[in-house]
Amino acid sequence: METMNLTPEPSTKADSGAPTEKPKKKDKERKDQKSAAKSQQAPSKKKPDDQALIGITCPKSEDLSEWYQQVILKGEMLEFTDIPGCYIYQPASYRIWEFIQDYFNERIRKMKVKNCYFPLFITEANLQREKDHIEGFAAEVAWVTEGGKNKLEKRLAVRPTSETAIKKIRSHRDLPLKMNQWNNVVRWEFKHPMPFLRSREFLWQEGHTAHMTEEEAGKEVLEILDHYASIYEDLLAVPVVKGKKTVNEQFPGAHYTTTIEGFIPAVGRGIQAGTSHCLGQHFAKMFDITVEDPNQQIKEGEKREKLHVWQNSWGFTTRSIGIMVLIHGDDKGLVIPPRVAETQVVIVPVGVTAKMAEADKQKLYDEVDNLRQTLEDQGLRVECDYREGYNVGYKFNDWEMKGVPLRLEFGPKDAAKGVVTTSRRDREGKGEIAVSDVAAKVPELLETIQKDMYNKAADEYSSHRKIVREWSDFVPTLNRKNVILVPHCTTGDCEDEIKKDSSGNVEGQEVDVRAPSMGAKSLCIPAEQPEEIQEGQKCVNPKCGKDAVKWVMFGRSY
Amino acid sequence: METMNLTPEPSTKADSGAPTEKPKKKDKERKDQKSAAKSQQAPSKKKPDDQALIGITCPKSEDLSEWYQQVILKGEMLEFTDIPGCYIYQPASYRIWEFIQDYFNERIRKMKVKNCYFPLFITEANLQREKDHIEGFAAEVAWVTEGGKNKLEKRLAVRPTSETAIKKIRSHRDLPLKMNQWNNVVRWEFKHPMPFLRSREFLWQEGHTAHMTEEEAGKEVLEILDHYASIYEDLLAVPVVKGKKTVNEQFPGAHYTTTIEGFIPAVGRGIQAGTSHCLGQHFAKMFDITVEDPNQQIKEGEKREKLHVWQNSWGFTTRSIGIMVLIHGDDKGLVIPPRVAETQVVIVPVGVTAKMAEADKQKLYDEVDNLRQTLEDQGLRVECDYREGYNVGYKFNDWEMKGVPLRLEFGPKDAAKGVVTTSRRDREGKGEIAVSDVAAKVPELLETIQKDMYNKAADEYSSHRKIVREWSDFVPTLNRKNVILVPHCTTGDCEDEIKKDSSGNVEGQEVDVRAPSMGAKSLCIPAEQPEEIQEGQKCVNPKCGKDAVKWVMFGRSY
Repeated sequence: METMNLTPEPSTKADSGAPTEKPKKKDKERKDQKSAAKSQQAPSKKKPDDQALIGITCPKSEDLSEWYQQVILKGEMLEFTDIPGCYIYQPASYRIWEFIQDYFNERIRKMKVKNCYFPLFITEANLQREKDHIEGFAAEVAWVTEGGKNKLEKRLAVRPTSETAIKKIRSHRDLPLKMNQWNNVVRWEFKHPMPFLRSREFLWQEGHTAHMTEEEAGKEVLEILDHYASIYEDLLAVPVVKGKKTVNEQFPGAHYTTTIEGFIPAVGRGIQAGTSHCLGQHFAKMFDITVEDPNQQIKEGEKREKLHVWQNSWGFTTRSIGIMVLIHGDDKGLVIPPRVAETQVVIVPVGVTAKMAEADKQKLYDEVDNLRQTLEDQGLRVECDYREGYNVGYKFNDWEMKGVPLRLEFGPKDAAKGVVTTSRRDREGKGEIAVSDVAAKVPELLETIQKDMYNKAADEYSSHRKIVREWSDFVPTLNRKNVILVPHCTTGDCEDEIKKDSSGNVEGQEVDVRAPSMGAKSLCIPAEQPEEIQEGQKCVNPKCGKDAVKWVMFGRSY
Repeated sequence: METMNLTPEPSTKADSGAPTEKPKKKDKERKDQKSAAKSQQAPSKKKPDDQALIGITCPKSEDLSEWYQQVILKGEMLEFTDIPGCYIYQPASYRIWEFIQDYFNERIRKMKVKNCYFPLFITEANLQREKDHIEGFAAEVAWVTEGGKNKLEKRLAVRPTSETAIKKIRSHRDLPLKMNQWNNVVRWEFKHPMPFLRSREFLWQEGHTAHMTEEEAGKEVLEILDHYASIYEDLLAVPVVKGKKTVNEQFPGAHYTTTIEGFIPAVGRGIQAGTSHCLGQHFAKMFDITVEDPNQQIKEGEKREKLHVWQNSWGFTTRSIGIMVLIHGDDKGLVIPPRVAETQVVIVPVGVTAKMAEADKQKLYDEVDNLRQTLEDQGLRVECDYREGYNVGYKFNDWEMKGVPLRLEFGPKDAAKGVVTTSRRDREGKGEIAVSDVAAKVPELLETIQKDMYNKAADEYSSHRKIVREWSDFVPTLNRKNVILVPHCTTGDCEDEIKKDSSGNVEGQEVDVRAPSMGAKSLCIPAEQPEEIQEGQKCVNPKCGKDAVKWVMFGRSY
């Protein structure tokens, strides 16, 4: 985990409330996959009343872990494999990753970042150079020791990150050097894998750049952080708080770490959503990566002085998909924001009865197909559900479970009125749109859904981000599923103390027995401070006694 | 190699003429990388006459292997690592792969193929199911045996292919099932890695689909083959011959294998460029993958009969980039077709002298920048080379080495005439375009270059694809760097015999001593036959005696 800290996957041991793979995972998986399979089975050998879709059987509020597993399995986002912590990303989730890739690529190309690909394997000697400097890295590397029927002379690491790029800088002509790659990495350490959130193999992008000056490096760090925030807010409809990590929480060796922090309302916990690091000259000095100073005035025959380059690294992972699911999903299943939904609109023909004349049915289907064509001409992604042998209720539930943001129903009654009936996935109730308005109104409605989903989540986040000035309010406010903003000294010892004192077993502290026992850690120093720190304001920790420096966001966290 | 045969990477031992990594690779690499590095160095500490770029020092016709290595290293397509057969794909080559991905994704999405992602690791038990049926597979698997500091209870294979998709079919409701993934795979077998063409880790897409009927499966196999051919012909400007593999050369277990075959004129060899397989019901029967027959008329309470599904698989790899380089590259370096060139146009300001007034220089640069803007507004990818301290000749050579298809030169003389000077990478000589016509004419010229590159390669391929009717012409025609079309019985024993009899050491056969000793194998049965096989026409192999069935393309091959 510690090596590059590009990923936000924490190695914290999960406790109650966290959607991990359950301990008796294998049985559990089989059961779930079986029930998921059942719900997909053709009903040809069943009577109509057997058709009820086996939906999500566990409310989100009751057991988040069980709910999460059902939602992603039955929503066909992910499948378990026979290797814990290694998952199949099905089209429903992988397409979201592709939308993220396209969005981010477009932005970084404008910044002149170039995509490349580094090898999966890294020699131990190569890795060792870094291991000396970065704690706890060896613990999570998967090693290849055999090739075909032969033992390899020297074992090879499966990359936990690719740091080789930094070796490439030879002269200032190469600066700024901006490389990025989309790949798979493996971290074999942890015991409690959680689909998307914490897995042994995951997909990410890792950017590695080098700059002439601190200023230029710093500018890029924030540009990337803005892009990360935009992926969450504008694509995934997930609000985040931008900030800087405290020294205690930043990547060891980094000059500083910027971060975006999300929030899972169901458990009231923060979750690290993406990090963009300024590594400073630390690695450049360690590996002696220098350039000649192009601005130095030199005389004939003189050599220019060497400058150590300024390096950044930044990473964004498939964890983002899990955060999206945890925030938007409900008791019916997934809720996918329109901008990243593979299917944005599903059209379900309704009112088709057994006694209906074939010609009437065909006419209705033709009209449905016209609707589809109209919407596709607007660039929307549309499915029509013509499946025979499934009743309408089954179909509704099925598409709701998959999270399709908008359902259009169209039957003889709608046709007679010249309307389609609309049903938004993100809220109850139905509406109508005139068939003649469909081309204009449906795209609008999708944008409305996108905004409403974001606003709902943003309201929830901001109503659970509490300003706390007194230590006596600290744990009680946390226990009401909040993250908190406190005046803080930003020192590490004090953070460690707070973590200890806010955990379940605090002497003399009244603690809700159902609350997580995990202590609170500093999530970030928000870029947007709630107010200025007043002269003489002390750190919230009464044992600390130091002056407060910043408002720091604390919380229980994934 | 044999497991899925989705990749066209052959395991044939390379012999002379093949651009392998040289035996004394390490020294070689160091030397090359050093010289590549040298050519990139800032000339600040050099005198102007030291500026000569160290270009490609080995003619293509002299030593293809040495030439190839120089071209891809100095063209900044690829870097070697400290693991033989594992390479860094630098932006210059990775961008081409991205263009291929975009192009292919667009086409397969229209076919309703969905992208997904399967894990890097496969348990041995899972792999074993297939190993029993597919020869020679175990020999090339890389095995992970350690995770962190612990030995794994059961070793894990690094995927050589992902075949898990085929397990997903549960009912005919799931058909057709069309999955594809873009990923990295590892095959640890071979001894002579060749950058792009044959590497231990490579990038590819692997498609796995299942269909109800043979007809539907067969239609898809050919659609995919057409897309593969289009990537080569329309993007990479590389001609290919479409056809079917003979039984001897098809994937063992496949119903049939379709293929596109390329040609490397420099050595007169064929090269397998992509394959699309109809696996038939072989795997479905092996793993009992069935669906209920939806067309069967059944009575109340009766069960539908089970049908085994029809499966396809198809794969396209980064080998394609190597083929493109081998075909188009010349003694100055890479030649990249405009449609896949990251930089399509480079504008080099010329006639900038030391005594030029700063204002005049700035004016020229502004005009260059206007040109850039005009071209970018047309959607072109443009670079301007404002580098100071490099002379124009150096810059020209540098961009030529990188293969940029079109160079525009613009200096005070051009400005006075109101023109830009054009220099095409694919041929000698210069032209002019009026500044006012640049927006219209430059995109046209790029399309002309694209077509000319294809036509040149296609002419070369077709002039080296000879019809041979008599065995006495077989080896001599091969030795003149041709592939040949012969009337053939299409049986395997006969092919084996031909391979043996066309290799260097044929008794009583006159052989050019400089010719490769490798025998000819059947490359494909071309879809487009040169003429009908005549009644009574015998197989070209005099020892065979059977009737000819088809014209089969034979050749020495990578």
